[in-house]
Amino acid sequence: MSQTSAEIYQLTKKAAHLRGVIAALDWDKETFMPEGSHENRSHQLQIMAGLVHELVTGEEYKRALSKVIDLKTGKVKGKPSKEDEINFIRLREDFLRDTALPVKFVQESAKLVNDANVAWKKAREQNKFKLFEPYLDKIIKMNQKKAEYLGYKDHPYDALLNLYEPGMTTAELKKLFDPLKKSLKELVKKLKKKKPTLPFKTYSKEEQLALADDLLKRLPFDLNYGRLDISTHPFSTAQHPTDSRITTRLNPSDPLSNLLTTLHEAGHGLYEMGLDPKHFGTPLCEAISLGVHESQSRWWETRIGLSKPFWKGFTPVLQKHGILKGVKPDAIYEYVNYVEPSFIRVESDEVTYPLHVILRFEIEVELIEGKITAKQVPARWNQLMKELIGITPETDTLGCLQDVHWSIGAMGYFPTYLLGNLYAAQFFETFEKKHPDWQKRVEKLDFSFIVNWLKENIHQHGRKYTSKELIKKVTGKPFSPEPFISYINKKFIPS
Amino acid sequence: MSQTSAEIYQLTKKAAHLRGVIAALDWDKETFMPEGSHENRSHQLQIMAGLVHELVTGEEYKRALSKVIDLKTGKVKGKPSKEDEINFIRLREDFLRDTALPVKFVQESAKLVNDANVAWKKAREQNKFKLFEPYLDKIIKMNQKKAEYLGYKDHPYDALLNLYEPGMTTAELKKLFDPLKKSLKELVKKLKKKKPTLPFKTYSKEEQLALADDLLKRLPFDLNYGRLDISTHPFSTAQHPTDSRITTRLNPSDPLSNLLTTLHEAGHGLYEMGLDPKHFGTPLCEAISLGVHESQSRWWETRIGLSKPFWKGFTPVLQKHGILKGVKPDAIYEYVNYVEPSFIRVESDEVTYPLHVILRFEIEVELIEGKITAKQVPARWNQLMKELIGITPETDTLGCLQDVHWSIGAMGYFPTYLLGNLYAAQFFETFEKKHPDWQKRVEKLDFSFIVNWLKENIHQHGRKYTSKELIKKVTGKPFSPEPFISYINKKFIPS
Repeated sequence: MSQTSAEIYQLTKKAAHLRGVIAALDWDKETFMPEGSHENRSHQLQIMAGLVHELVTGEEYKRALSKVIDLKTGKVKGKPSKEDEINFIRLREDFLRDTALPVKFVQESAKLVNDANVAWKKAREQNKFKLFEPYLDKIIKMNQKKAEYLGYKDHPYDALLNLYEPGMTTAELKKLFDPLKKSLKELVKKLKKKKPTLPFKTYSKEEQLALADDLLKRLPFDLNYGRLDISTHPFSTAQHPTDSRITTRLNPSDPLSNLLTTLHEAGHGLYEMGLDPKHFGTPLCEAISLGVHESQSRWWETRIGLSKPFWKGFTPVLQKHGILKGVKPDAIYEYVNYVEPSFIRVESDEVTYPLHVILRFEIEVELIEGKITAKQVPARWNQLMKELIGITPETDTLGCLQDVHWSIGAMGYFPTYLLGNLYAAQFFETFEKKHPDWQKRVEKLDFSFIVNWLKENIHQHGRKYTSKELIKKVTGKPFSPEPFISYINKKFIPS
Repeated sequence: MSQTSAEIYQLTKKAAHLRGVIAALDWDKETFMPEGSHENRSHQLQIMAGLVHELVTGEEYKRALSKVIDLKTGKVKGKPSKEDEINFIRLREDFLRDTALPVKFVQESAKLVNDANVAWKKAREQNKFKLFEPYLDKIIKMNQKKAEYLGYKDHPYDALLNLYEPGMTTAELKKLFDPLKKSLKELVKKLKKKKPTLPFKTYSKEEQLALADDLLKRLPFDLNYGRLDISTHPFSTAQHPTDSRITTRLNPSDPLSNLLTTLHEAGHGLYEMGLDPKHFGTPLCEAISLGVHESQSRWWETRIGLSKPFWKGFTPVLQKHGILKGVKPDAIYEYVNYVEPSFIRVESDEVTYPLHVILRFEIEVELIEGKITAKQVPARWNQLMKELIGITPETDTLGCLQDVHWSIGAMGYFPTYLLGNLYAAQFFETFEKKHPDWQKRVEKLDFSFIVNWLKENIHQHGRKYTSKELIKKVTGKPFSPEPFISYINKKFIPS
C-alpha cells in the first residue's frame, strides 16, 4: 500500500466500521432492544447514517480518492497493484452514486418514505389501497427522478436496479425472465397434488433453537464469529467477517420452517464470514450484489435444505431431537417441497416464487415507464397474478399491499430475489461437476466441502468481479436461466 | 429555547446519542457479541470515542458554547432560563475538563493503559506483582501529570477525584472517612459468629432469570425501557432514559447472590430511567456523579435487599420458585448479612466494604503525593489490611492485584464506592421520616413508593445540583458519615 492509497483506505476503513456500528444497532433493534426505546434508536441511526454520508461524500474523501483515480474519466493514477486498482474503480463507482443525489432530494425522500411506510401499514391492516395510493404515487415520481439523477444508458429502471445489482439491465432481465416465465407457468399447471401433512406436536423455543444450533454447527456456521437469534422477520447482518449474525422465526407447530429459515439466513451469513478480513474496509471485503447474496441463501435453503439427501441425513437428527419420530425422510421431503399457487410471495414454493418476483418486476417497469399509474396497481396486480400463477387475491392485503418494499421507497430491488435463484442454479451445475458425490456426502451430513467451495469460488473475491463476471469465471459460461429451468423441471417432473 | 442555545444543544444532543451508541456497543460486547470479533469491536469503539471527542472539543462546539457562556470567566450570557443557565455552567465545566489534556498525552495514556492492563492480568494470574510494578509506576506518574493538566486548588488528588465526583475534595474525604474507619474497626472486632448455611440445590439459568425477572417486575423496573441479561461482571448501562440495561451474574448454587446483584444493578438502572427524557442531550438528563449513582445501587442492594422486611416478604416468592422451601425468613436474613473480614472487596459485606475502600483511598493519596512508590504498594497494602480489617493476604493476587482500576489508569475512582453508601444512608434517614411505614410496605412487596421517592428527590434533577447540594436539599443537612455509622451500628449490634 502506497502513501497515496493509505489516505483513502483510512477513510474507507472508518466508513466500513461506522457501517458495522449501524449493523450492530439494527440487529439489536430487531432482537433485544426494549420496546420503549424505538424513538431513541431512530435518532441514533439517523445520526450514524448522517456521519457515514458526510464521510464518504465529503471534501476530504473526494480529495483522497482523486489522488488515486480520476473521478471524471475513471482512469487509475500511478501504478497500483491489481487489487488496489479494482478497489479504486469500485470506490469511484460508489462515490459517483453517493454524490449523485442532491441533499435536498435525499431529505425529502426520507420524509416521504417515513410517511409512506406508516400509510402502507394502515392500508394493509385495513385492506384500503386508497390510503396508500397517494404515497405510492409520490414514491413512483421520486424513483423516476432518482433514476434521472443517477443516470442510465438505456432504461431509467436500470439506474434503480443497479443500486442493488450493479451492471444488470432491464433488457437483460426481460431476456432472462421471459423463458423462465413460460416454463414455470407450464410447470405450475401440471402440479396438482394433495397437500401432505406431518404429525407435528408443539415445540418450545429452547427445543427449536437447539435444533437450529445443531444444524448450524454441522455446516459449520462458526458461532465464534456469528450468532443465531429470534426475530419477527428473519434477517442476516454482518459488521465484519468476524461478526456475522442471523435470526430465525419460530412456528411452534412446524420446526421445519425454522430449519429452512435458519439455512437461508446461514447462507447469507456464511457469505459475509467468507469475505477476506485482510481487505476489510475496501470493496474487496464487500458482497458483490443483493442477487449474489441471495444466491447464497437460496443455495443453502433450496439446493441443500430442500434436497433428498439432506432429509435422508437429517431426519435421524430431527428424531434425536424428538421431532417426527417414525416418519420417513421421503415424507418430509414431500412435505417441504409441496408446490401450490398462493398469494403471498414469502410463503411461496420454489416453482411459484420466481413468478411472484416477475410480477413485481413487470409492474415496477411499467410504473417507472409511466405506462401505468399508482391507481392502476391493484388491477394490474390481480391481472398478472391470474396470468402467471392462475389465482386472484380477494383483497389487496393479500395482493399488492403485501410487501414492505415500495413503502420504503425501494424499486428495482425485487429482481434480485429471482437473480439469486438463477445464479445459485448456474453455480450449482459447476459445483456438481466438481463434486459428483455431493449427494452421498450430504446424506452423511458432511457440509464443509460445500462451505469451502463457496468460499473459494465466490465469497473470498468480494467485489473483485461483477456478478456477471463472476458467473462467467466460475462456470465458464455466460449467465443464463437455463440451469434453473432445467433443475426445477427435473426436480418437479420426475422422469 | 433561544436561537443561540439551539446551536449548542444540537451538538450536545448529538454527542449524547453517540455516547448512547457506545453504550450499546459496550453492552453487546459483554453480553451477546461472538467471541471472535473482539478486535473488530475495539476498532468500532475507538472510532466512536474519537468522534465524540472531536465533537465536544472541536471548534464548532467551542464557538456554540461561547455564545451562551464566557468560557474564561464562566459568566452566562444573555438572560437564559434557570434550566438553561445550569446546563451552560455544567457544559463549560465539561468542556474545560475535556480540553485540559493535550492530545499527545491522551494518546500516550491510552497506549500505556492498554499495555498495563495486559501486564496486570498476567501479574494477577501468576501472583507476580513485579510484572505490573513498572506499569503501575508509569500510571502513577501519568495521574500526577493529569492532575497538573486538570488543575486543582488544594491537593492534586482532588483533580482526579473530581473526574468521578465533581466538587469533592481529598480533605473532605479524610474528614468523612476517619470517624467511619474508627467506628467500623471497632465493629468488626465485635462480630465473631459462625458462618450460616442454607440448604441450596443447583439452579438453572432459566430458573434464576425467572426469579430475577419476578423481582424486577415488582419494583417495578420497567422492562419496556430496560433489560436484564447475564454477563461475567455485572454492570448497568444506559443509552437513554428509555433504554437502561442491567446484567447479573449467576452462581448455580446460590440464587441469592443473583438476586442481590440484580437489585444493585437495578438501582443503577432505575436512576438512568428516572432522568427526565425531555432534557436528553443536556446535563439535566445526566447522572450527578459516580457516588450518587452508587448510592442508588447500594440503596436497593443493602437498604432494601439486606433488610428484614424484604426477606419476610420475599421468602414466600423464593419458595414459590422452588428455592429454600421450609426455610424461615430470619435464617435467610442471617445468611445474607453474615459479616466476616475477607480479602476481596467485591465479595465483602456491608461492614468491611467501607474499610476496603478506605485502604485504597489512602494508598492512592500517598502515591499521588509521592509519599510511597509503586514498589512499596504490596507492603503498604498488607500493612493497612492488617490495621483496618485485621487480616493479611497470603498473595498479592488476593491483595493489591485484585482490582482492575489502576491497570486501566483510574485513580480517584474508589472513594465513590464508599460515598455511595454514605449518601444512601443520609437519604434513607429522610426517606424513613417521610415513610415511617416503609418496613410494612416492603413486607407486602410494595416497592413503587420507594422508586417514586427516589425519582422525585434524586433522579429527575439530573445534574441540576452537585452531590453535596443535593444531599443538603433532600435531607436538609450537610453531608455527614453519621447516618451510615448509626445505621450500621444499629443493624449489626442489636440492642
